Formats: sequence, structure tokens, C-alpha cells
Amino acid sequence: MKPLALIKIGGKLLDDQVALQAALASFASLSGPKILVHGGGKEVSTRCEQMDIVPNMWNGRRITDGPTLEVAVMVYAGLINKQVVSHLQRLGCNALGLCGADGNLILARKRPVGAIDFGWVGDVESINTPLLLALLEQGVIPVFCAITHDGQGQLLNTNADTIAAALATALATDFVVNLKLCFEKDGVLSDPEDDTSVLPSLAIAQYQQALKTGAISDGMIPKLDNAFNAKKAGVSHVIICGSKGIAQIQGTEICL
Amino acid sequence: MKPLALIKIGGKLLDDQVALQAALASFASLSGPKILVHGGGKEVSTRCEQMDIVPNMWNGRRITDGPTLEVAVMVYAGLINKQVVSHLQRLGCNALGLCGADGNLILARKRPVGAIDFGWVGDVESINTPLLLALLEQGVIPVFCAITHDGQGQLLNTNADTIAAALATALATDFVVNLKLCFEKDGVLSDPEDDTSVLPSLAIAQYQQALKTGAISDGMIPKLDNAFNAKKAGVSHVIICGSKGIAQIQGTEICL
Repeated sequence: MKPLALIKIGGKLLDDQVALQAALASFASLSGPKILVHGGGKEVSTRCEQMDIVPNMWNGRRITDGPTLEVAVMVYAGLINKQVVSHLQRLGCNALGLCGADGNLILARKRPVGAIDFGWVGDVESINTPLLLALLEQGVIPVFCAITHDGQGQLLNTNADTIAAALATALATDFVVNLKLCFEKDGVLSDPEDDTSVLPSLAIAQYQQALKTGAISDGMIPKLDNAFNAKKAGVSHVIICGSKGIAQIQGTEICL
Repeated sequence: MKPLALIKIGGKLLDDQVALQAALASFASLSGPKILVHGGGKEVSTRCEQMDIVPNMWNGRRITDGPTLEVAVMVYAGLINKQVVSHLQRLGCNALGLCGADGNLILARKRPVGAIDFGWVGDVESINTPLLLALLEQGVIPVFCAITHDGQGQLLNTNADTIAAALATALATDFVVNLKLCFEKDGVLSDPEDDTSVLPSLAIAQYQQALKTGAISDGMIPKLDNAFNAKKAGVSHVIICGSKGIAQIQGTEICL
């Protein structure tokens, strides 16, 4: 099977134009079929503030109410996605920007309301793999933002790591998928206070231990859950890394 | 040759949700290969106002300065494009939203600064016809917004009628293209004060005469220039119509 690079960039990488340009240059340098997934950074909060949209928060997490979803669609699927695509085009990559509604590529379902209503947030249901394969066959480089749809006309905000993991899983029967979840750190840290304490690998038993001791916490938990889900579902390589890890061997490899 | 419907919707059609939904339902009812191009309506002005972006105007026309371009990209390529795509998906159309940067589908050049600098406005240079044909071959329904790029990393604001005419022209060697430029009137009016005075056809000599008498003026001039350019370039049918004209025979047919 052919290799395919599936790179997700997010976090502070997107807020710093120098870091973003470096990440895009590394991505452009990769040969063979590849896919980019990007998160949103702080731009949605900035634009919401400009539009006097009062953040609807719950335990420090933003709730995606109607006005916030509109801004998320504008920023993720519009501004960031098209800026990334146009820069990749400049670098000679035939990038094509997509959200999950486009070609029904990522169908999601609104998260059921439990103890808390997250609003217009979607959990991935299915990937339109045949169309994705057809796009790759054309030499197109898909660039996904973190917006999906429910098939009933409703756009939904979805976690970008989850999208990357779902795309990697869908392509695992056709490619040796190399999934890299890139963020501002160089990998999973054994000591959250020490940026150089990057673990070369992380096995599931180690992860469960680290959760108990609190060595791994907060935002790393959903990221690692997505990483382990992809690995369990047959994705060949799953790596948590920094932008240096896009084109180099670097970061933390997820093992079962 | 197979027929292809290329429908552009714009103007007040986009500002009225009921009119927009009716237009999308008509578009969804068309059989065979088809492409939708949409303008932006008033949403960019509304969002600019919300963000306290002071309009930079010249003779009643908005200049696309940097902040305005960002809002145009957010609204056209983000909010409107993805809302239209998700609604078409609900109606069973496998719509896929695009701007000109995506897959380098519409390469443009920044309009040279003459007596006036229109800012980040692009004139269409070329269409990536092979990729467009490949998308249509996959049964995908392209939905274009009016944002293009210059291939050097710069996004550009481009007239939606011009984009529709350029796409129609590029496809005219592969399809019997039926180009319909739809707006809030039912066609070209012989009397601008009488909405029922729709001309069944308009020949170039008649158009030149109407320009002299002032019977055709303002925003109709660039629209008709685009329509005549497409017709001259070999597009089989070019029709100016209202949303009823999307699925029915209605409006003004452009003749040479």
C-alpha cells in the first residue's frame, strides 16, 4: 500500500503567522498523497469580540450557540481555510479547501444534550471515502477545516483532532496512513513543566497510568483519545508532534 | 454534446431567505451536470458594520481594502458558500463549495491601479478546466463563491457574473452550456420602471441602442457585458432571468 501523510495543525501554530508559514512550507515539502486538517486558533474569539457576540461559556469551554457557529463557519471554512489554500498554491501544492458539508465528505450528528448543551457541535458519523479517494487520485491536496454538517442543512462545529483521526481511519484500508497531530509542543511531555521531556513513544498502559498520576491532563486528553482511537482502528502510524515533526522524525509515537 | 446548467444567483435573491430557499430548490430539481455560482448580497456590509470596519467608498462603489477582503472571504467563501452547500446536500445535491484558490480553479490578476485603485479585486485570467471536468465526472456539483486568487498567495474579490461567464466559456467546448444569470428582476426590462416589460431576447445591436438611450444603465451594464462576452465566446445559451427562470423557460435570451 502507498503511504499517505495526514497532518493536523492547530493550537498556537495557527495564531503565529511565522510558525504557520513554516508549517505550511514543511507540509508542501512532503511527497506523495497528503491531506491537511486545520483547527481555528484564537481568531473566532477575536472576531466574536469585534462583533460584540458575548461568549457563552461553561467550565471554561465556549458553547457553540447560533451566532458563534456563524463566526466559526466564517473563520474556519472561510478566512483560515482559504488563506491556507492560497499559500499552499503559492508553494506549488494543488490544495483544495473543504468542510465536511462539501461533497458530504464528513457527516456528523449534533451532540446529544446531556448535563450540558454544547450547542451546534457535531460528532463524526461517517466519511465519504470514495469521493476523498477520487480527489486524491486527481492529485488534489484536500485541506479540511473543522466544520461538518448533519445532512439536514445544519452546519456543525467539530474538533479538528477528531476530524483528522476519522479521515485517517477511513483511509487506513487504502493507504499506510501516517497521522501527525501537530501543536505548539514537540510531543507528549513526561513533565508538563519541561518542554524538552518529549516521550519518544506512548503505549496505552503508560497513558492510563499518566492519567491517574495527572502527568497528562486537560487538552491533551481528548487529543490522545483521538490518537489512540485512530491507532486502534488500524492507522499505521500516529504521532503527536510539533511543526518540526511535519517533515522530520520527531515527536511521540502512539503504540497499543 | 451533453447539456450543462450553469446558474448564477445574486443580488437581492441572497438577502431574502425565502427567495434563496426557492432558488436552491429549483436548482436542485435540475437534472444532469450543473454548477452554481453565488454572489454575496448585503452580508459583507452588515458584517463590516458589526466589526466597525469603515467602508472605503468611491462613487458609491466599495473599495476592497485589506479588512474588507478578509470579511468578503469570511462571508462569501465561508458563511454563504457553506450554508448553500449544506442546504443543497439536504435537497439531495452532492454540492461541493469552492473558491478560485481551491484546486487553482480560477486564477485571477489584481486589477491594475488606474485613475482609481479598487484594492484587492481580481480579473479572471484562466480556469483549471481539467479539474472542473474531473469533479463533474465524479457527480459532484460545484458551488462557486466570488473569491479568486493570484497564485502568489493573495486572495482576490471578483465579480460573480464574471466568474459565471468565465466558467461557462471554459466549459463551452465540452458541453452545451446553458448559462443563466439570475437576479431579483425577471429579465432585461425595456422600461426600468416596469417589472413586467421583460424582453424575450436581446441582440447586441439592440443593447448598444439601449445604452445610448439610457434604457439600460448602472448595474445592468457589467452584467450584460459579461453575458455578451460569454455568448461571443461560444456559450450555447445565455439568459438573464429571475429565480423562476432557473428551472423554467423565462427571461431574456442574449443573441449576437
